[in-house]
Amino acid sequence: MDLSVLYDAKSYHMPLAERIAERINQLIIDQKLTENDKLPTEFELMEILDVGRSTVREALKILVARNVLEIRRGKGTFVSKNPGINKDPLGFAYMQDKMRLAHELMEVRMQIEPWTASLAAQRATESDMAELCGYCAKVTDMDLSEALHREADLAFHDCIAHCTHNQVICNLTPIITHAVTVFSDISERSVRIKTRISHQQICDAICARDSQAAQRAVLAHLEANRENWEKMAR
Amino acid sequence: MDLSVLYDAKSYHMPLAERIAERINQLIIDQKLTENDKLPTEFELMEILDVGRSTVREALKILVARNVLEIRRGKGTFVSKNPGINKDPLGFAYMQDKMRLAHELMEVRMQIEPWTASLAAQRATESDMAELCGYCAKVTDMDLSEALHREADLAFHDCIAHCTHNQVICNLTPIITHAVTVFSDISERSVRIKTRISHQQICDAICARDSQAAQRAVLAHLEANRENWEKMAR
Repeated sequence: MDLSVLYDAKSYHMPLAERIAERINQLIIDQKLTENDKLPTEFELMEILDVGRSTVREALKILVARNVLEIRRGKGTFVSKNPGINKDPLGFAYMQDKMRLAHELMEVRMQIEPWTASLAAQRATESDMAELCGYCAKVTDMDLSEALHREADLAFHDCIAHCTHNQVICNLTPIITHAVTVFSDISERSVRIKTRISHQQICDAICARDSQAAQRAVLAHLEANRENWEKMAR
Repeated sequence: MDLSVLYDAKSYHMPLAERIAERINQLIIDQKLTENDKLPTEFELMEILDVGRSTVREALKILVARNVLEIRRGKGTFVSKNPGINKDPLGFAYMQDKMRLAHELMEVRMQIEPWTASLAAQRATESDMAELCGYCAKVTDMDLSEALHREADLAFHDCIAHCTHNQVICNLTPIITHAVTVFSDISERSVRIKTRISHQQICDAICARDSQAAQRAVLAHLEANRENWEKMAR
């Protein structure tokens, strides 16, 4: 059950810093270090791994580049919030045809998000619901700036994922929802009122534990999104 | 429609090498460089970006760590096969409870993969079908070693995703299927005959353009997988 077995076979061909990065990575996993946990110092790592300072530094840089670690000046090296998850894990930035990407992404969202909402309606705890209502209220605040509105919108969708208590859904949701904000960039203002209504419907359905209604509300929300950016594209 | 806008706001607080890495990244996107395309030399990058050699090197290392670039000794720096996609993009390695992960991952696969197969049945071209049958034949070859069998199995599942002609599904599928191989590690031999039959059923359904049958066949395949590792876990 150890994911490291997947990588070991390849590790002999890796440069030293890369191999040491993998070992530090394994150390994090074995010692169950999580968000905000502090890593041993460079000197301690040199001792533990029996390598020189420059190799440890190279290895730490690799893990920072991969978002496993973050360096806080003067404080040390810490495990990142979502270790190993970068800001564009499916490589959307490298896809040339953004209109095609928007279309394909929407197809995937239509399959995953209504289902996610129905699971959320079945599994949300009382405190999950309170949190969801909080985010929903934020999104419906029409006085928010565009940036804050978007942030609240994403937090709302992440919270729905959180209500499922499935970590894979939690990690997957930001990837497929956050990228889409790019396409709603220009249309944001015009859809804001619609968004407010549909968010309230989703929130109400989940809090009423009505998984069918939650599914329908998310589907309607996505349909409205799609119509909007298809109109924009024409 | 430019994903880089998401990152620009943050870039002022980044270290120089990180900012230069982002600019090289943007260069790759703007110049539409893809797999196996060669990057300008270090010297050319120094000129283009107006920074010193050590900064260019640091930046390149960051992009290698993120799997955007790969260095081929004596040949130069090239764009990776799936730029920006690392081997564990959802951070499964950092999840402590692997049994829970297996369970949650299966829940997500059950939602996505039967649907993927139904899209594949609707959209596969003649050449897609030929390719799929090729991988299917490989998986059914009982004389293959365990490693080669697994490789053929993953290629078969990737090929189904490819038949949908949706790039997001193509990039998402390996993430949710490849991780699962970890759990079938020990059980591989006992399920091999079952796997052979269900792969053939999936392949036949897609080639017959029967999306309902394709969906059912994948669901049955996943059910068998689940039963198998739940039995193992007890």
